[in-house]
Amino acid sequence: MALIVHKYGGTSMGSVERIKNVAKRVAKWHRAGHRVVVVPSAMSGETNRLLGLAREISAQPNPRELDMIASTGEQVSVGLLSLALQAEGLGAVSYAGWQVPVRTNSAYTKARIESIDDKRILGDLDAGRVVIITGFQGVDEKGNITTLGRGGSDTSAVAVAAAIKADECLIYTDVDGVYTTDPRVVEEARRLNRVTFEEMLEMASLGSKVLQIRSVEFAGKYHVKTRVLSSLTDPMIPVETEMQSGTLITFEEDPTMEAAVISGIAFSRDEAKITVIGVPDRPGIAYQILGPVAEANIDVDMIIQNQSVDGKTDFTFTVPRAEYQAALNILNGDVKTHIGAGNITGDPKVSKVSVVGVGMRSHVGIASKMFRTLSEEGINIQMISTSEIKISVVIDEKYMELAVRALHKAFELEQE
Amino acid sequence: MALIVHKYGGTSMGSVERIKNVAKRVAKWHRAGHRVVVVPSAMSGETNRLLGLAREISAQPNPRELDMIASTGEQVSVGLLSLALQAEGLGAVSYAGWQVPVRTNSAYTKARIESIDDKRILGDLDAGRVVIITGFQGVDEKGNITTLGRGGSDTSAVAVAAAIKADECLIYTDVDGVYTTDPRVVEEARRLNRVTFEEMLEMASLGSKVLQIRSVEFAGKYHVKTRVLSSLTDPMIPVETEMQSGTLITFEEDPTMEAAVISGIAFSRDEAKITVIGVPDRPGIAYQILGPVAEANIDVDMIIQNQSVDGKTDFTFTVPRAEYQAALNILNGDVKTHIGAGNITGDPKVSKVSVVGVGMRSHVGIASKMFRTLSEEGINIQMISTSEIKISVVIDEKYMELAVRALHKAFELEQE
Repeated sequence: MALIVHKYGGTSMGSVERIKNVAKRVAKWHRAGHRVVVVPSAMSGETNRLLGLAREISAQPNPRELDMIASTGEQVSVGLLSLALQAEGLGAVSYAGWQVPVRTNSAYTKARIESIDDKRILGDLDAGRVVIITGFQGVDEKGNITTLGRGGSDTSAVAVAAAIKADECLIYTDVDGVYTTDPRVVEEARRLNRVTFEEMLEMASLGSKVLQIRSVEFAGKYHVKTRVLSSLTDPMIPVETEMQSGTLITFEEDPTMEAAVISGIAFSRDEAKITVIGVPDRPGIAYQILGPVAEANIDVDMIIQNQSVDGKTDFTFTVPRAEYQAALNILNGDVKTHIGAGNITGDPKVSKVSVVGVGMRSHVGIASKMFRTLSEEGINIQMISTSEIKISVVIDEKYMELAVRALHKAFELEQE
Repeated sequence: MALIVHKYGGTSMGSVERIKNVAKRVAKWHRAGHRVVVVPSAMSGETNRLLGLAREISAQPNPRELDMIASTGEQVSVGLLSLALQAEGLGAVSYAGWQVPVRTNSAYTKARIESIDDKRILGDLDAGRVVIITGFQGVDEKGNITTLGRGGSDTSAVAVAAAIKADECLIYTDVDGVYTTDPRVVEEARRLNRVTFEEMLEMASLGSKVLQIRSVEFAGKYHVKTRVLSSLTDPMIPVETEMQSGTLITFEEDPTMEAAVISGIAFSRDEAKITVIGVPDRPGIAYQILGPVAEANIDVDMIIQNQSVDGKTDFTFTVPRAEYQAALNILNGDVKTHIGAGNITGDPKVSKVSVVGVGMRSHVGIASKMFRTLSEEGINIQMISTSEIKISVVIDEKYMELAVRALHKAFELEQE
């Protein structure tokens, strides 16, 4: 008898038939005696259709009105799912974000959840109902509808789970969990039964796009046990089986897993690097280089600045490959003359590979093992960046698969 | 400098191009110095699409969830129209019913408006903005979304106009006003410049489906000057021209129009009549006959019961032709034996023709002129029913057009 939050993505909600399948799965949990809250996304394609209409009218649509429009996709979903559950003979009730309410700040199209009132939800659960709450959206203190941005339904689900102190938040998705690396690159990639939220954070931001990163932050902050599991299984498989499937993201390191030093190899293929050579080493220089890039809405990922020699330093950063030319243009424009840089070079064909694991905190030699493995494969490391639980390197794109496979093997990730 | 409510139907909002045209028209009024509130319907087809999804999931969908789903169509509309107005350079803000709020009772799918808060609306108008409010929907006191039922956007617009004490409510539609009768039947049919709300009520319920009948009741109750006018004109025609176009529905009889005895000929083609012969004349008999029919959700229109002879009477009523067989089946079942009626007869091919006009209150001889006109054309009158401002007759369907034309001519409606 647990209190469980289920989250279903747009693909799971993509048609009437699929919605009926979701209802069957939820009903199974309810009949097994659990109290269930469901957070569904909009039907796949619907949010794009709505935003497309808005963009046909205005090239730069007002964000408040965008949220007014986009939030309707989830409202339709909760209503339809409630009907499907009622057709299964269950009591069910749907709520839009503002009805709960899910309070957010007023940053339209990328709002952050501030609080969730649990009164209505718990009241309905006590009355034996399944409660269905729109993902992706909330309401600000003035009563304006807000949305959390793409993928925000994951965050909604985890936040609801935190608010009602759920025992677990189940994120149903089209993969069956988090893997030691991408199985398409390394055949021996193994599904992790558990991963810590900090590892998941690093995996998510490095390209293992299983969960929206903010939902993982939320899970960590509020200690929500979150499980990623498959929505493609038969909806009638036993609850006990489902409870053990997928990957559990925990907020505590598993004491029995002490030996597992790293949990996975993450990678991001489509990177580009840009180096500003001969930059005067003076305060504010990083901002002068990256400020104009950020203003152009270009995501900067790794940033490396070495010790200066003779008052000059080289400044390197990576951007998504698609933004490479735009970033170069910005730097070669006003920025270059403004900062008095020597030259600007770049390479649009690099990839990033990272080893991730909370275990490396207390283990020495992870970095050297990683570097040796790459060296043995003849792979040159172009950039290195480290955090407490990950080490990332930038390498030539053409060696990416080789590097991932070699590291996966070196760290024996195929073994439980 | 007036305070004006505009209402646009689903056809006017049917595409991005049409929404842009609506925005041009509204912007024109705003630039002419008027304060404008707009109440748009959902894009044409959208409400049907949403209800279709719901019915695919459940044959008898829960009405609360239906309203949750159906109300999103108007929410998309207000957002898109707001964007289009902003693209015209105007300040604009959209509100869903619950944000105003538009308070209704809890009768899902057919809720009634109880109150509308004018604070937000007037605040935005004072700040120079155009305010856009969803039609068709509201929120009950527990915060559940409700809808007003089909055509409810007309009612929303008139109710908003009443709440903010608007000078006029303009209902833009695909006809250019209210006519003395249907121009497709009588070529000389003339657009009325004015009609009283009572006449409009009779016209609406008799088949002149220009306005939803509840909106007319609302206009009468709260003395809202309501104008029906064309949305198919060039959006840039002068405001002054538009202000004089269409048909104004007034709550007072025009003293200068004293001579106009009747204002129009209404008709309803697809009627059917049913007569229960030899009914014992005792209390409760009408309910025993019509109760089961009403329970089957069959609309009963005219009801006639004559003076009884020898303790027996004949009881006749009309229903929509599509419901004829269903109604007959009900009566021929338990009802017939239960009430001890002699026989049940009917005719599924009758039509109703009515003359309508507040003027007839103070004029004698309207009925006799109507009956003489029909007699001269050799049309047999099967049923007669009268109210203070209308006289309706049921005749053989095949004479309907002839009757309408003859009456239109006899009452000289082609002349101003």
